[in-house]
Amino acid sequence: MNFTAALIAEFLKGSVEGNPEATVSDISKIEEGKPGTLSFLANPKYEKFIYDTQSSIVIVNADFQPQKKISATLVRVKNAYESFAALLRLYDQSKPKKSGVSKMAVISDTASLGKDLYVGEFTVVSENVSIGDGVQLYPQVYVGDHVKIGEGTILHPGVKVYEGCKIGAHCVIHAGAIIGGDGFGFAPNQDNNYEKVPQVGKVIIEDHVEVGANTTVDRATIGATILRKGVKLDNLIMIGHNVEIDENTVIAAQSGISGSTKVGKNCMFGGQVGLIGHINIASGVKIAAQSGISKDIKEEGIVIQGSPAFEFGPYQRSYLLFRNLPKLREQINELERKVEQLKQ
Amino acid sequence: MNFTAALIAEFLKGSVEGNPEATVSDISKIEEGKPGTLSFLANPKYEKFIYDTQSSIVIVNADFQPQKKISATLVRVKNAYESFAALLRLYDQSKPKKSGVSKMAVISDTASLGKDLYVGEFTVVSENVSIGDGVQLYPQVYVGDHVKIGEGTILHPGVKVYEGCKIGAHCVIHAGAIIGGDGFGFAPNQDNNYEKVPQVGKVIIEDHVEVGANTTVDRATIGATILRKGVKLDNLIMIGHNVEIDENTVIAAQSGISGSTKVGKNCMFGGQVGLIGHINIASGVKIAAQSGISKDIKEEGIVIQGSPAFEFGPYQRSYLLFRNLPKLREQINELERKVEQLKQ
Amino acid sequence: MNFTAALIAEFLKGSVEGNPEATVSDISKIEEGKPGTLSFLANPKYEKFIYDTQSSIVIVNADFQPQKKISATLVRVKNAYESFAALLRLYDQSKPKKSGVSKMAVISDTASLGKDLYVGEFTVVSENVSIGDGVQLYPQVYVGDHVKIGEGTILHPGVKVYEGCKIGAHCVIHAGAIIGGDGFGFAPNQDNNYEKVPQVGKVIIEDHVEVGANTTVDRATIGATILRKGVKLDNLIMIGHNVEIDENTVIAAQSGISGSTKVGKNCMFGGQVGLIGHINIASGVKIAAQSGISKDIKEEGIVIQGSPAFEFGPYQRSYLLFRNLPKLREQINELERKVEQLKQ
Repeated sequence: MNFTAALIAEFLKGSVEGNPEATVSDISKIEEGKPGTLSFLANPKYEKFIYDTQSSIVIVNADFQPQKKISATLVRVKNAYESFAALLRLYDQSKPKKSGVSKMAVISDTASLGKDLYVGEFTVVSENVSIGDGVQLYPQVYVGDHVKIGEGTILHPGVKVYEGCKIGAHCVIHAGAIIGGDGFGFAPNQDNNYEKVPQVGKVIIEDHVEVGANTTVDRATIGATILRKGVKLDNLIMIGHNVEIDENTVIAAQSGISGSTKVGKNCMFGGQVGLIGHINIASGVKIAAQSGISKDIKEEGIVIQGSPAFEFGPYQRSYLLFRNLPKLREQINELERKVEQLKQ
Repeated sequence: MNFTAALIAEFLKGSVEGNPEATVSDISKIEEGKPGTLSFLANPKYEKFIYDTQSSIVIVNADFQPQKKISATLVRVKNAYESFAALLRLYDQSKPKKSGVSKMAVISDTASLGKDLYVGEFTVVSENVSIGDGVQLYPQVYVGDHVKIGEGTILHPGVKVYEGCKIGAHCVIHAGAIIGGDGFGFAPNQDNNYEKVPQVGKVIIEDHVEVGANTTVDRATIGATILRKGVKLDNLIMIGHNVEIDENTVIAAQSGISGSTKVGKNCMFGGQVGLIGHINIASGVKIAAQSGISKDIKEEGIVIQGSPAFEFGPYQRSYLLFRNLPKLREQINELERKVEQLKQ
Repeated sequence: MNFTAALIAEFLKGSVEGNPEATVSDISKIEEGKPGTLSFLANPKYEKFIYDTQSSIVIVNADFQPQKKISATLVRVKNAYESFAALLRLYDQSKPKKSGVSKMAVISDTASLGKDLYVGEFTVVSENVSIGDGVQLYPQVYVGDHVKIGEGTILHPGVKVYEGCKIGAHCVIHAGAIIGGDGFGFAPNQDNNYEKVPQVGKVIIEDHVEVGANTTVDRATIGATILRKGVKLDNLIMIGHNVEIDENTVIAAQSGISGSTKVGKNCMFGGQVGLIGHINIASGVKIAAQSGISKDIKEEGIVIQGSPAFEFGPYQRSYLLFRNLPKLREQINELERKVEQLKQ
């Protein structure tokens, strides 16, 4: 399919700068632009590439001020990244969707199945499972007894959902993610061994949640581990038993949240962040990558860093001084010399 | 099933405070207690909930001193958490167990199989495998050639065990865990490329070990990577080649241990801890979350923190001063001014 | 099979010290040496074991100077570790290789298959896939539509490769690794929800790459996430969308690289390292374990540590002073007392 700059601008409610008949049939990164492709510029780090790009059309922010001549046709929009994402969604939706139930899947007679399903090869749907309309279960997925999956949700290859867990509508669970494994609970006994504390709770995932590849969400000891509506988890994240994460919180890869901790709405955690158990994090809190959180964060919207973490600005100042500790010590030694001289 | 407070107290060798005829049929968290349910209170952080809980019965420690009136019936026991765990085990054992060998599993004729097995759909049992009585292999498990699995062990969906590894009795291996992948060994050659060092060893897991979801335990280069009796590993942990972890050591999620390191008995590691290779950790050592260990720890039972880690108390003091570095610098600057004045 | 010291020395172009007729039939670690086995000594940490080892033959570096009498026969070579690795490769190649295509695999009619394949049980090869000669797909592997896999590559049990990804020749992908899951991209909308940015790019893995167990390599938003020739990734690593890693870079377990970051050739990263997105790392850079990289590293070959990281030597000096901060404060307090005395 071919699209002109004029058509793209109309779809995005933007304006054309250059040739409105410039035509594209594919997408490329601005730094790898080829004639006949569409690119975008949102992150200022990439501005340098727009002056040389071979892309035929570039979507830019309305307030973008070129420093040099640009040969590509520009489409100016309110938010270049969002507009580009909207085009990608359009492109993505035009691709054929997997459908049909494989004869090589095993589906229990007791399962309740919606319409328009895709169930891939070697997928297992266990007893008393309920699956909504349009659900896609890729090959080699395991759905345990009494699991519920809401309409339009996608489980990519190899996802495992333990018994009794609930996944809402329009969720995406990526390959290798494990939903509902046992929480990590052991009680020491008289012989100084550990005995397993059975984990009889479950996991509840609400609508529009995305879970990354090989991420693990443990079931609750009792009650439920809960991911609320719109939560987005990246790959290789660990969510402990009885954790609750409120709406639209976004967590980057390899972070871990220990048991019974509660996280508010609209938080953003960087990668490799760790939270201890049994604490509460207020809404809107931002945590820098690799930070460790060891106590309640009560102030909404603050930014924190460090292990253990404290406020971002003070952390940055302390860390700068940490780097300069050799100089600081030199300053102290010099002072000592001066004081000794004065004493004589 | 319904249970009275009197019956529960008898089972737990505890005492009733309140109505011995109070009856429960389910379990709930104390902060979400409902009439007809049983809760427990062990962590003092949750004491505030006991005064308002709707739970009919609450198990508490013998020495618990209420600060206000409590409407629930109490069952006082020596250790509330352990007692509650014992009840959960009872509850858990009453659930029906998966059994039978699926026609959709592939089991080699050369495999030696015990009695009372569960082998789920699309599970592969390769050549010369030995499986003990009562073993449960959930769907989509892979058991490589010459693997041995002891009686009563459970492999959850999608677990992969490479050839030649040994898993003891009464172990639980959670979904997605990989046992026996190659250790990370490469030797640089003349062309500045790396050539693989074949990993011809294996993994030995002794009895009563639990391995969390998506955790990986690499096989040894030569000899064996060993998890001794009672070791408990949480999710997403990395155990490198030729590592040995001694009895009853417990490691939280996302920690990693590099090749050939030896860890003693009864250690406790927090989450996201990292250990370099070829070191020895004494028994009973506790390592705070996110710490990095770069050398032998010889003193048994010490608590360490930091990256690189040192003793917990000194680390805490240093970190407090790190937070106060801006003040410390101000103090130094003030001293400099005073000394300059004195010199004039 | 039995091998004499003379034969081993001839194969390795080394020299025998001791009995040239000493014979071995197996391999052991030097600290667990048994009669009739071959060991090696490369790491000086293990020298103490050579004086008591029961191994019949030990491969050592040409310049090794024993401090005591050794009963084993020595084979002196230029590089003991490399020579031992070469022997292991010989040993490994002598083992029978899996072969044949299982009737319990599902392979699309549209797939193009090379010769001498191994395709295990419950493996799925989707539409328009291209697979080179000698490829080994272990059981329960998923190969999505339009994937290409080069000759001699091994995919261990349960590997999942999403549609459109390319894997080169002679690669090894370990169990549970996920190639081509969606990048983590969301754009906030007017309702303060996040909308998914479709990830329409792919993953390109060049020849001789090894990917560890449960590692995840995300597909690009547009274009490709690229692992160049000879890259070695350990277990549980996260490679974000549009990342590019240049030739022969080696990364230890549980490290993570955020979206669009570019890493040079011959780098070495320790375990649990994190890199933010959109940065460039020069060739030959070494990063200490648990470090966090928040900006471009332009100097080739430097060694860095810390979170955020800076040069290794200065980091070590700052960290030593961090440990001594209580003393430093005491020094400052003492100075204050002296200055106060002087003022009087």
